[in-house]
Amino acid sequence: MTNHDTIVALATAQGISAIAVIRLSGDDAIAMVQQVFHGKDLTLQPSHTVHLGTIRDQDKNIDEVLVTIFKEPNSFTKQNSVEISCHGSPVIVKEIIKVLLKRGARLAEPGEFTKRAFLNGRFDLAQAEAVADLINSETDNARQAALNQMRGGFSKEINHLREELIHFASLIELELDFGEEDVEFAKRDDLRNLILRIQQYLQTLIDSFDAGNVIKNGVPTVIAGKPNAGKSTLLNILLNEERAIVSEIAGTTRDAIEDEIVLGGINFRFIDTAGLRETEDVIEAIGVERTRERMKKASLIIYLFDLANTTLDEVKREEEELKLLGIPYIKVGNKIDKADQKLLRALEANDVVLISAARKININTLKEKILSVFHIQDVMPGDVMVTNLRHFQNLVQTHTSLQRVLDGLNTGITGDFLAMDIRQALHYLGEITGTITTEDLLDNIFSKFCIGK
Amino acid sequence: MTNHDTIVALATAQGISAIAVIRLSGDDAIAMVQQVFHGKDLTLQPSHTVHLGTIRDQDKNIDEVLVTIFKEPNSFTKQNSVEISCHGSPVIVKEIIKVLLKRGARLAEPGEFTKRAFLNGRFDLAQAEAVADLINSETDNARQAALNQMRGGFSKEINHLREELIHFASLIELELDFGEEDVEFAKRDDLRNLILRIQQYLQTLIDSFDAGNVIKNGVPTVIAGKPNAGKSTLLNILLNEERAIVSEIAGTTRDAIEDEIVLGGINFRFIDTAGLRETEDVIEAIGVERTRERMKKASLIIYLFDLANTTLDEVKREEEELKLLGIPYIKVGNKIDKADQKLLRALEANDVVLISAARKININTLKEKILSVFHIQDVMPGDVMVTNLRHFQNLVQTHTSLQRVLDGLNTGITGDFLAMDIRQALHYLGEITGTITTEDLLDNIFSKFCIGK
Repeated sequence: MTNHDTIVALATAQGISAIAVIRLSGDDAIAMVQQVFHGKDLTLQPSHTVHLGTIRDQDKNIDEVLVTIFKEPNSFTKQNSVEISCHGSPVIVKEIIKVLLKRGARLAEPGEFTKRAFLNGRFDLAQAEAVADLINSETDNARQAALNQMRGGFSKEINHLREELIHFASLIELELDFGEEDVEFAKRDDLRNLILRIQQYLQTLIDSFDAGNVIKNGVPTVIAGKPNAGKSTLLNILLNEERAIVSEIAGTTRDAIEDEIVLGGINFRFIDTAGLRETEDVIEAIGVERTRERMKKASLIIYLFDLANTTLDEVKREEEELKLLGIPYIKVGNKIDKADQKLLRALEANDVVLISAARKININTLKEKILSVFHIQDVMPGDVMVTNLRHFQNLVQTHTSLQRVLDGLNTGITGDFLAMDIRQALHYLGEITGTITTEDLLDNIFSKFCIGK
Repeated sequence: MTNHDTIVALATAQGISAIAVIRLSGDDAIAMVQQVFHGKDLTLQPSHTVHLGTIRDQDKNIDEVLVTIFKEPNSFTKQNSVEISCHGSPVIVKEIIKVLLKRGARLAEPGEFTKRAFLNGRFDLAQAEAVADLINSETDNARQAALNQMRGGFSKEINHLREELIHFASLIELELDFGEEDVEFAKRDDLRNLILRIQQYLQTLIDSFDAGNVIKNGVPTVIAGKPNAGKSTLLNILLNEERAIVSEIAGTTRDAIEDEIVLGGINFRFIDTAGLRETEDVIEAIGVERTRERMKKASLIIYLFDLANTTLDEVKREEEELKLLGIPYIKVGNKIDKADQKLLRALEANDVVLISAARKININTLKEKILSVFHIQDVMPGDVMVTNLRHFQNLVQTHTSLQRVLDGLNTGITGDFLAMDIRQALHYLGEITGTITTEDLLDNIFSKFCIGK
């Protein structure tokens, strides 16, 4: 596959709409569109200008369109690029793409526009990945985190630290060239200090992943509890309040997704626990493998007690079982209006959030409690933060390789082993920003993009 | 509702995609976007230019976008207009629209951009309606018909004839001013000739509606016949051949719609005739009201006979029943390989199309037969043609009013009655192109548009 031929794809969402945008990129993109465009001579127009005309297939008019041209290197892909804005009928989109294919364009692979942007140096790999994250962001916090990453994020700092490390690696490899002569170009103390500095920065990024992952991917949540504890009522209260906010702007929200709410900018996805709800007591049912599997998918359990029908002993007993799951949980007492005061005081002391789902009492307190579980307040979406599993894994691997270098320095390991560990760390770091890539790595990343991006 | 305030809407389809386009129109559109745009000063840029920058809400970056500006009157609406091309995340779209609403924009009503284009004289009403038809076109022929109408279609000729008629109406009304004096400014023979000329043109348009309607709206079709005649096999053969063509270009076709095929540029929609299929004999079941209702929705019945298990008498008997429905029908004999030659010759003489659905014999002959029912070949999509029911009704009403004028001329009716009938014809004609409109008429038309158009 060449990176200079002209690729074409629908760039906007499929469906009937006012307008649709078809995007082309490649050396011949502008000249190719000119062949089917009736209007001005596009090849003579300056970059970043828009032109009204008709797309034709021989004598057949397909549609009146607006064509925007971008001349290399001033485009997203840094190649000649064209955006055709046509009427938003799937039939028209199909006809226009067909006539462009006839003229030699090729249907773009998923992510191929962004891949070209990366290969042509528009941005590094971590930034390119952020483009996909941005498109897929489901909350405002996820959008903010992706935008920060796209605009640079940790890339600059990582590249800077990597260059310092390369400097040391080169010096150590130079020492090796001198063989038996006992020279030391790379000062070991400076190297140790650099590695500690890099590790410290990596650790900050690694630590940000928990929050970053929650912000990007949301929190799979289970509401559990005995029958009649009020699980559905609570879920509906949480969902409906959110719905009212979401539906403020007509026409922009996606089709309603059941059991998904955004609290404090984080997406809480409620896992279908039909299997759980069937049993008399969720915790008792833990032994059942099917239930356990469902539970394992959760990152948060909201366990609901019916205050009209529970004791402090029961709460303590259930909590012992909850702890065994190893998943964050929140104990909630529902029907606060039906419990006696003594029980309420005892439960409050045992960290049970006391609410009434039906009467909407203390719902905000519960929401704050839910958010506090994930320490989102420690990492703000505006901060540099790791949201991508691939980056997280590479950061951890880099940290480990650097630890081996440190250990080697402490035990006075030979230069060739030191150099090997440093090279390994450089490799992992380089893969994050794409300084080091393989075709497999790129395919794996860009194939997850949508077509047209 | 004013037509100068700034309206905003998502113009591309909803969903996750590479890019989404948000559109604004109004006197302040460019200045308003400038308030939330970080980049160049958009108010100083020439029309039809594109600018990279960031949309911000106070200090919060929402997205990196491309902003295209169109200066009045060189835009679709003839107003200052802006298109914001952002990353295709519903969250981003929502945030950008929100910040624009904060700055004083208003969410556009369905069709409001096109309505403004009409009110500002970009095109007449028939052309504006064609914009919606274009977006909703489901076949290439429907697209072509809509595009022709949008580019002028019959508007010019109708306006021309209407002006000639206005001339006569004025002369006749002038006569009335002279009261008892026996003057005749409007030559009756010339008027008669003009009306005949107009009627002839109207009749051509009226006659084109059958084909135009089929091209625009498709043909609701029923495949009927006794159990085991091969109805499902035939439907699948027709559908599958089409699917292979449709899926040529990945990513541009809509979600597969069951039981809908395009033959010769016409959409054949197969009506669910479960109710019909349940009965032993469709024709016998005509008495059943529910079945009759379903049948009435069809514009074509394909009646399938099992050649291995039928007689000429039976075919003739069934045909008598088919005729009673008053809907075009095609008699098809299936399993041609299992019939004896004598029967085949007899059926062929009785206009039965002989096929084998399972062995794909004569399927193309059947397709040609289906198309021939609708005389599409008589009206090409490139011709001026009426596809809109409202236009059709107005054309018929105009024709009727003009007939009253003719009849009046023949019976020597007085000038004031003549003038009244001519005014009535002028009214109906004027409503087609929107020379005469009411708020109700416009609301009715534009409310059927999608948001953002």
